[in-house]
Amino acid sequence: MPDRIYTTDLPHKSEDTEVLLKGWIHQIRDLGKIRFWLLRDSEGLAQIVLVAPKKHPLWDIINKIKQEYVVEVIGLVRHNEKAPNGVEIEFKSCKIIAEAVSPLPFSVVEQKTKANFDTRLKYRYLDIRSPTTRAIFKVRAACVQGAREWFLKNGFVEIHTPKIISAGAEGGATLFPLYYFGKEAYLAQSPQFYKQVGIQAFEKVFEIAPFFRAEKSRTRRHLSESWGIDVEVAFADDKEIMRIQEELIISIYKYVKEHCQNELQLHNITDLKIPKAPFPKITFVEAMEIAQSKGCEVSLEEDLSAEAERAVRETFDTHFFITEFPLSCVTFYYGPHETKPKFTHKLDLLAPGPNGVELTSGGQRITDPEVLIRRAKETGIAPKSLGWYLEMFQVGGIPPHAGFGMGLDRVVMTILNLPTVQEAVMFPRTVDILTP
Amino acid sequence: MPDRIYTTDLPHKSEDTEVLLKGWIHQIRDLGKIRFWLLRDSEGLAQIVLVAPKKHPLWDIINKIKQEYVVEVIGLVRHNEKAPNGVEIEFKSCKIIAEAVSPLPFSVVEQKTKANFDTRLKYRYLDIRSPTTRAIFKVRAACVQGAREWFLKNGFVEIHTPKIISAGAEGGATLFPLYYFGKEAYLAQSPQFYKQVGIQAFEKVFEIAPFFRAEKSRTRRHLSESWGIDVEVAFADDKEIMRIQEELIISIYKYVKEHCQNELQLHNITDLKIPKAPFPKITFVEAMEIAQSKGCEVSLEEDLSAEAERAVRETFDTHFFITEFPLSCVTFYYGPHETKPKFTHKLDLLAPGPNGVELTSGGQRITDPEVLIRRAKETGIAPKSLGWYLEMFQVGGIPPHAGFGMGLDRVVMTILNLPTVQEAVMFPRTVDILTP
Repeated sequence: MPDRIYTTDLPHKSEDTEVLLKGWIHQIRDLGKIRFWLLRDSEGLAQIVLVAPKKHPLWDIINKIKQEYVVEVIGLVRHNEKAPNGVEIEFKSCKIIAEAVSPLPFSVVEQKTKANFDTRLKYRYLDIRSPTTRAIFKVRAACVQGAREWFLKNGFVEIHTPKIISAGAEGGATLFPLYYFGKEAYLAQSPQFYKQVGIQAFEKVFEIAPFFRAEKSRTRRHLSESWGIDVEVAFADDKEIMRIQEELIISIYKYVKEHCQNELQLHNITDLKIPKAPFPKITFVEAMEIAQSKGCEVSLEEDLSAEAERAVRETFDTHFFITEFPLSCVTFYYGPHETKPKFTHKLDLLAPGPNGVELTSGGQRITDPEVLIRRAKETGIAPKSLGWYLEMFQVGGIPPHAGFGMGLDRVVMTILNLPTVQEAVMFPRTVDILTP
Repeated sequence: MPDRIYTTDLPHKSEDTEVLLKGWIHQIRDLGKIRFWLLRDSEGLAQIVLVAPKKHPLWDIINKIKQEYVVEVIGLVRHNEKAPNGVEIEFKSCKIIAEAVSPLPFSVVEQKTKANFDTRLKYRYLDIRSPTTRAIFKVRAACVQGAREWFLKNGFVEIHTPKIISAGAEGGATLFPLYYFGKEAYLAQSPQFYKQVGIQAFEKVFEIAPFFRAEKSRTRRHLSESWGIDVEVAFADDKEIMRIQEELIISIYKYVKEHCQNELQLHNITDLKIPKAPFPKITFVEAMEIAQSKGCEVSLEEDLSAEAERAVRETFDTHFFITEFPLSCVTFYYGPHETKPKFTHKLDLLAPGPNGVELTSGGQRITDPEVLIRRAKETGIAPKSLGWYLEMFQVGGIPPHAGFGMGLDRVVMTILNLPTVQEAVMFPRTVDILTP
C-alpha cells in the first residue's frame, strides 16, 4: 500500500501514480454510471472519480459511504484540466475508517446558507470542517505567527503571566470572581501589572494568552474570554509604542497575505490591503470634534460612545491612532501629560471603516509612586489595595516604559471582515454562551 | 549623543568609540581612586570604569548612584583582556533615569545565597533582575519557541480553546468553580475535548496555553495554574504520538542548547545532554515490577505512587515511556486495548533520575460512542453530562486519533534541574501562593 499523501501533493504526482488519500467525504455527486466524491483532508479537496461504481467489487461499501464518512481511498492520478486543481483520482479501492449519521444536522458544504451562527456553534465539531470556518482559524493561527515572528526578530522575550490573581488591574466591575482554596480570587483582565515586572528582566516582553472580562454587553465586539497580544517595553514612550504597533500590524497582515491566500479567497478577499505606516494620529479632542461635527454627543469626562467612535472611524480608510486620552477617562496607571495636565499618554489603535473596531489600548505608564498613589485615590482605588504593585515603584529602579494590549480576536475579525468577533473564536464565550 | 547600544554589542565596537548604554547598576566596587560599575541591561553586563571619580564634574550624581539605579552612561570603549567579555567602558558622563531604595530588600547580585524562595517571590520585581532567575525565563521562552518551530515545520496548526468551561474533562475533584453570569462554570483543566474538535479541521493541532487544577498537594511538582503544550493528531495511534513526543522533546532541548548557552551556564549546565530517540518504553506492568522489586507497594487499581514512580525513574538515565496503563486508573476517554482488555493505550513520558518527573500524559482516544458511554458509566460519569462531546461521536465522521499534554513548567524544571516547578514559573500559583 502506498504511503498516505495529502490532497495538495496531488498536482506534483505524475500520471498513473497510485496514491493513498485519507479524509472526509465532503460531497457526493451520483450520476448513475459515474460517481464523484470530493474528499477533504486538512490541506484541501480532491475529486475521486468512480466509473461504473455498481460493477465494482466494493459496491456495497461504496454505496454505504455518505457525507462526512472518514475514508481511505486508493486510486490513480489523472491530470485533467477540468478537475479542481487540474488533477483527479481514478478510484481503485476504499476503506471506511469512520461512519457518520445521515442526514447530518447540517451540510458542511452548504453551512453558510443553511445554518445560522447559533446552530453552527452548537455543532461546532461539524461546522469547523467547512472550508470557510476552517479558513478563519487558519488565518487566526497565521496572525499569531506573524506577530510572534516580528517579536522574535526584534528582541522581545515571551513571558507567561498568571491568569488567577488576587486583585484586578482595572477595577472590579468586569472581574470574574473565583473561589481559590478558601480565598477570593479573580480571573485576570490583563497581564498589565505582570508585564511591567517582566521588563525589569528583559526590557521588551510580549505575551499571547487569554484574558477574561465579565462583559455583560451583547455587541459584535465583546467576548468574556479573549486572547490578547500584550507588549511592554522599557525606556519606551508613546511614540515608540505607536511605531511598534504599526510594525506589528503590518507584519501580521503580511504574514496572513503570504500564508493564507486560499483562506482569504474563501472570505472573498482577493487582495488583502497591507496597512501603510505611519498611521494617521489624532488626539482625543480632535476625535471628539469629528464626532461632534457628525451630531454625536461627546464629553471629556468619558470615553467616546460606540456611536461617536463609529463616526470617527468612518472618516478613515486606514488604521489610525487616537492619542492623548483625557485623565478623566483612563485607568489609574496612566498619569498626566507633562504639558497638557488634563490629558495623558494613553492611546488606542483603531481599524477603519464602518466594521472597524478598537484593536489596541496602551500608552506610557506612571513610574513615580507618589503620582500612582494620587491617581489611585482619584479613581477610587485604595492605594493600599495595590499591594506589591505600588511597592515595586517604591523600591524603585523602574525605568520609564510603555506598552499596549492588542485584541487578537478583533484583529482576525477585521482582517476577514467578519460580522462579529464571536466568529473569530473557535469556542466563543459571552454572557449568553458557555458551551460547547 | 550616540544611539543606545546593548552590552552585548560592545565587543564588536572599536577602541575609543563613544557609546551610550542604558540599564541598571548591578554592582558597585569603590576603591577610592577608582570606581567600577557593573551595568546590567536585558542582554548582559558591562564594566564601567570611573577613574578619580571625586574629581569628575558629575561627582554629586556619581556618588548618589546606588545598586539598581537606572542610568544612562556615555563612555569610551576600551578593549581589555582582564575585563568581563574583554571590553570595558571608560566613563565620560551619566544621567540618573530612576532611583531605587537603599538598602534593597535583598541584593540582586547575591540573591542566590541571601534570599529564600518566599522572599524572592515577594519581591519578584527585584528577583527577576538577577541573572540566574532571568535565565530561567529565557530558557522557558526558548522551550516554547523550540516546540513551536517543530510544530510549524511539521504541519501542525495552532488553536485556542476556551478556559472557561461548563464541565470538566477529568471529573470534578480538581476543578476551580467560577460564577459566570449567574451560571456555574469551571476553569479548564485541559483542552482535551476541544483539541479533539480542532483535528476535525486541521488533523494536527497544538495549543500552548494555561490550564488550571485545584491541586491541594504541596509538592515540588504541583501548581494550580500551569502552562501546557497540548497536541492532538488525527489518524494517529499511540506509537505515532510517542514518536512525536520524542521529536518534540529533542527539538526543545536542541533549541535551548543553541539559544541559551549563557543561561544554561548560569545554572551550572555546561553541556546540556540532548535526549536520543527512540526513548525506552516499558509497560505499566513492567513499571510495577520494577517498583515492587525496590520494595514499593503497587496495585493495578491505581496509578503509581510518587514513591513507586521515583523508584522506576531512578532505573533510567534517559527520558522513557510508561505505556499500557490499566483501565482501572485512567480517565473515561481511554478505552480498552484490543488484545489486553484490562489495559489501555494511555501512556506517560517521564524525565529520568531522582529529580525527574512525569512530563506528558496521553494516548489513543475512544471514538466509538458506545464504548464512551460504557467507560463514562464505569468511571462514575453520567453519559448525559458529556453533552456535545458525546454527541460529536454520535454524529460521527471522527477518525481515530491520539494526543497528549506536556507540562511546560515541568520541562523547564527538568532542563535546568530546578528544585521545584514553582521556580519555573514567573508568578507561581499553589494552594498557598496567590500573590504577587
